[in-house]
Amino acid sequence: MDRRKILSKLENWGSNLAKAIVEKKEPVMEIPARTLSNTLWDSKARILRLGDEKIYRRYLDVNEARRFMQTVLMLRLIVEAVREDVYPTIRDLYYNGKHTIVYKDPLGGSHRENTWDEQSESNTVIEDIEVATSVLREEMGVSADVKGKIVGPIVVRSEGYELDASKFGETALSLPVNVDNLEIVKVEAAYVLVVEKDAIFQRLVREKYWSQENAILVTAKGMPDRATRRFVRRLNEEFNLPVYVLTDGDPYGWYIYSVYKSGSIKLSYESERLATPNAKFLGLTATDIDVYKISDNYVIAANEKDVKRAQELLRYQWFQKPEWTREVNLFLKKKKKVEIEALSTHGLKFLHEYLRDKIRGGKFID
Amino acid sequence: MDRRKILSKLENWGSNLAKAIVEKKEPVMEIPARTLSNTLWDSKARILRLGDEKIYRRYLDVNEARRFMQTVLMLRLIVEAVREDVYPTIRDLYYNGKHTIVYKDPLGGSHRENTWDEQSESNTVIEDIEVATSVLREEMGVSADVKGKIVGPIVVRSEGYELDASKFGETALSLPVNVDNLEIVKVEAAYVLVVEKDAIFQRLVREKYWSQENAILVTAKGMPDRATRRFVRRLNEEFNLPVYVLTDGDPYGWYIYSVYKSGSIKLSYESERLATPNAKFLGLTATDIDVYKISDNYVIAANEKDVKRAQELLRYQWFQKPEWTREVNLFLKKKKKVEIEALSTHGLKFLHEYLRDKIRGGKFID
Repeated sequence: MDRRKILSKLENWGSNLAKAIVEKKEPVMEIPARTLSNTLWDSKARILRLGDEKIYRRYLDVNEARRFMQTVLMLRLIVEAVREDVYPTIRDLYYNGKHTIVYKDPLGGSHRENTWDEQSESNTVIEDIEVATSVLREEMGVSADVKGKIVGPIVVRSEGYELDASKFGETALSLPVNVDNLEIVKVEAAYVLVVEKDAIFQRLVREKYWSQENAILVTAKGMPDRATRRFVRRLNEEFNLPVYVLTDGDPYGWYIYSVYKSGSIKLSYESERLATPNAKFLGLTATDIDVYKISDNYVIAANEKDVKRAQELLRYQWFQKPEWTREVNLFLKKKKKVEIEALSTHGLKFLHEYLRDKIRGGKFID
Repeated sequence: MDRRKILSKLENWGSNLAKAIVEKKEPVMEIPARTLSNTLWDSKARILRLGDEKIYRRYLDVNEARRFMQTVLMLRLIVEAVREDVYPTIRDLYYNGKHTIVYKDPLGGSHRENTWDEQSESNTVIEDIEVATSVLREEMGVSADVKGKIVGPIVVRSEGYELDASKFGETALSLPVNVDNLEIVKVEAAYVLVVEKDAIFQRLVREKYWSQENAILVTAKGMPDRATRRFVRRLNEEFNLPVYVLTDGDPYGWYIYSVYKSGSIKLSYESERLATPNAKFLGLTATDIDVYKISDNYVIAANEKDVKRAQELLRYQWFQKPEWTREVNLFLKKKKKVEIEALSTHGLKFLHEYLRDKIRGGKFID
């Protein structure tokens, strides 16, 4: 969508509210409910997504009036930003909209009310506007931290400039906030390898793993941001590239994989664009500790938080597959976790062998 | 230094220890002391640096034998990595060297000793080897997380590939682990703007601040890593570019600035290569709250940690200048901090005006 189309979508949503007032009707916002009960596992599409529940935010409902005001205020700020071609961060929008409304009640009493006190309030209405208008934050031009970087046999175009990520030497290409503005010009890769850890990404770049394997390497330093998830999804969807994810062998790493693959609960309204249901898990698994003979000296005892997180994973529908149930239960039994770097006990180049063994041998989990 | 020269420096250090043993002398390592008492403020060079104190690690000293063993073990791992052309992370080296030594005492009793238990132990000996051999971790090919990214009128070359950071559109160039391997081919910038926050960096990229100003933009997301600091230093030293740093208006932001400018206590042995004594602080200062009329609604009450950090700053010699003493004391009096984004209360483009006002008007702190 270009900026003009986005602007008219946002403006229309606002105009309809104004129109209701002119017609002396109560303005009501219809917004898909972003609640846990309305977050459903779509087993056919293999992603988390929002169900059909809606909330109705009414101007004349005293419980809703404040949120109503906040939503309209944020809509105004975003529309202004798009019109003026500026790219505020979500924190800018919080500050830009924060002020105190002073008003008098019918009996003459004076009242003061802050538009919002915490950024969590302004963030929430941004998400409401996203789901209500189907315009994503990135499309509105809202800026945020960007974590993703890539290297490999792929050429992209940004604002007319072609960038060939196979010609970056020891540097890498840092993704933009809105990867849908990125045109993917040419892809000659055999697969995409997503690496949880930045330092491992750096190693694989310097050790020329990607050129030996003809792979696109991606990292987002831990939990991926929206941009990285969207980019990985595009590589899979538009170019049919297999996507493999490499994380530490612990419940947090497995959850990171599932966020790439199935989406997150918080952003389930975006899974349709962000998730990569075809992504495969390369490891490390709980079984890998035995298979790759990683001795007790190199594994870490799980703590309470790890155990709790593992128990949560078992409850998620998207983990309810025999392979995953087995792995998570094995973890809960042994209470041991293992890091990618533990493979270095077999020599500093063993990581390469491990990756090739898993990919060539089809030893991944779906 | 090329890999061969680095290798011979590391090997020589090890050979001297071996030679002593062959000659039936006690092997002793001479290592510059990385202690607080040996960290000096060099007021002429305007950097933190190590003094002349040395420690002597003796093989036959029962209190030193373990650290002696760890140092030699790490040296071996690093030499092997350089020889085999692999680029382990510091965590890889920890795992690669971790094992249990079993030995018998003269009375026949059996003992077990781990080479190291925690990564802090293996990291410490890496730093010892750095200061003792004058070969930096980056030169040894040790990998680590990379935080820095850049855009702007600069062309660099990495492994033969030229990268023009003025042609990156909405993406950015992610720095390599070892920026001394980066050849800076051409620089046409008027200055360097270092931005603490990644999201603000993204905004300035998208709003074309750098091309309007002909500036190189740099961010390292908060506390800078070694690569980013070294790169900023090179831009100032080799190309005489003014360097301006923009952070939040709080003691943490001011400390980040001082790390770019003067070095950090922990890495004082590296300041000579990492610090940029000419860097100027663009804001936000405690005074800015008044000057730029940022109302109480947009400032944040300082917490205990902020106050403690501010008191620490006052004790550092490199903050003992009238401008800084005034700012820190003003902060301690008002106990208020302010974020970069608070400037958005004056409109979403006010940040640009602020930056131009400060730079054109010379309103920075040295």
